[in-house]
Amino acid sequence: MTVKAATRLYVEADLGAGVPLALGAPQTHYLRNVLRLEAGAAIALFNGRDGEWLGRVQELGRNSGTVLVEELSREQVPEPDLWLVFAPIKRARIDFMVEKATELGVGAFRPVLTRRSVVDRINTERLGAVAIEAAEQSERLSVPSIAEPVKLDRFLAGWPEGRRLILCEETGLAPPIAEALSGIEKGVPAAILIGPEGGFEESELDAIRQYPFVTRAGLGIRVLRADTAALAALAVFQALNGDWGQRRHRP
Amino acid sequence: MTVKAATRLYVEADLGAGVPLALGAPQTHYLRNVLRLEAGAAIALFNGRDGEWLGRVQELGRNSGTVLVEELSREQVPEPDLWLVFAPIKRARIDFMVEKATELGVGAFRPVLTRRSVVDRINTERLGAVAIEAAEQSERLSVPSIAEPVKLDRFLAGWPEGRRLILCEETGLAPPIAEALSGIEKGVPAAILIGPEGGFEESELDAIRQYPFVTRAGLGIRVLRADTAALAALAVFQALNGDWGQRRHRP
Repeated sequence: MTVKAATRLYVEADLGAGVPLALGAPQTHYLRNVLRLEAGAAIALFNGRDGEWLGRVQELGRNSGTVLVEELSREQVPEPDLWLVFAPIKRARIDFMVEKATELGVGAFRPVLTRRSVVDRINTERLGAVAIEAAEQSERLSVPSIAEPVKLDRFLAGWPEGRRLILCEETGLAPPIAEALSGIEKGVPAAILIGPEGGFEESELDAIRQYPFVTRAGLGIRVLRADTAALAALAVFQALNGDWGQRRHRP
Repeated sequence: MTVKAATRLYVEADLGAGVPLALGAPQTHYLRNVLRLEAGAAIALFNGRDGEWLGRVQELGRNSGTVLVEELSREQVPEPDLWLVFAPIKRARIDFMVEKATELGVGAFRPVLTRRSVVDRINTERLGAVAIEAAEQSERLSVPSIAEPVKLDRFLAGWPEGRRLILCEETGLAPPIAEALSGIEKGVPAAILIGPEGGFEESELDAIRQYPFVTRAGLGIRVLRADTAALAALAVFQALNGDWGQRRHRP
């Protein structure tokens, strides 16, 4: 079957052949009023667990609709287990960072409060919507999770065993990121840590470096904004240690 | 001397010890009303040619001011000769891309018109201001140039000898970027080519691939927006073939 899906939607429900799927008001509105789809239109569906499925619109009412799930179009494949650990930044920049990091394959956003953090809250609901839209557009099979901010020292004290933390330093003292990544076994769970605008405090940086799960990495000779550093480190990670060695599925 | 500069400004004039520098209205306004500097304040200056200099504010009037250039603080060093060749995109995204790409060390922005280009103009004045501000903040010693858009086929027909063009494909058929870059000699002039939203037309892609100066590269299994692809490719280039092998000068 080479049906062209009109769009690609993330849903929470289980997916399988013959499953009828109830759409909420926002998705119904999007299909009906933005894309102007009608009964019979094919759309792609994913939920982060069951692969991607083709479904067929059955009904689009004013506030609800149904889709019949028909056929598996892509198997669920494991994705790199990669966290982005970052200090919250201002609204436009954090939205942009979440969008781009989702495209680049982040599995979880883990905001942390550092000593120089200026912003101490994030809107997980808004950022969740940004992540879902980016996942839908990027043909990902999952949506990254977004946690509430926690204090960095507490977060590191409870660090999960077996996960590597790549500390992006702007001190000029850390090995270049390509060299740093070559020391990390491919496929192990990893996290990228980006400091706040203005950087970590020196004593804070010292404390982070003491942890045995930390790999220090430098991002070149220019000063990068926090969001630029996050995207750059993610791209280099995916190219060298992540899944960019694979070639893209072509729909 | 370990004077801490209050800010860092890009200027067009030649820089050298004892040179008096006239400031225009926007820079005077910034120093006087935004930073609230007074006579005697130290600022850093660069022009892309003479390295970075420390200067001292002499006078800040309503619309003009003067700075006395005092001492060289950083030698001018060669930067990677790296172009970003891209199809113009919408305003918020292009501003963001220019800011980030400037931090990532792009030497020249070369917009091109492709068959599926939707936007066919750019505001070089506004983007120039974005690039200057990003260069000032990133501690670069130069500001990237921004050209007017030209048709892609004409641009490639007049391609400069000795410059490698890295064609970022989303076909799933190109070698992963890390592998592709390993085939390019380090230090040769290079350019990264990113297609428009929606991608190149198939016949357009075929024509690009025929050129002997083209290296094809893939950016993984997810679909990236044009601006994400540009930043990701630049970061990987700098990490593997550019100047991220060097450690950062620490002011």
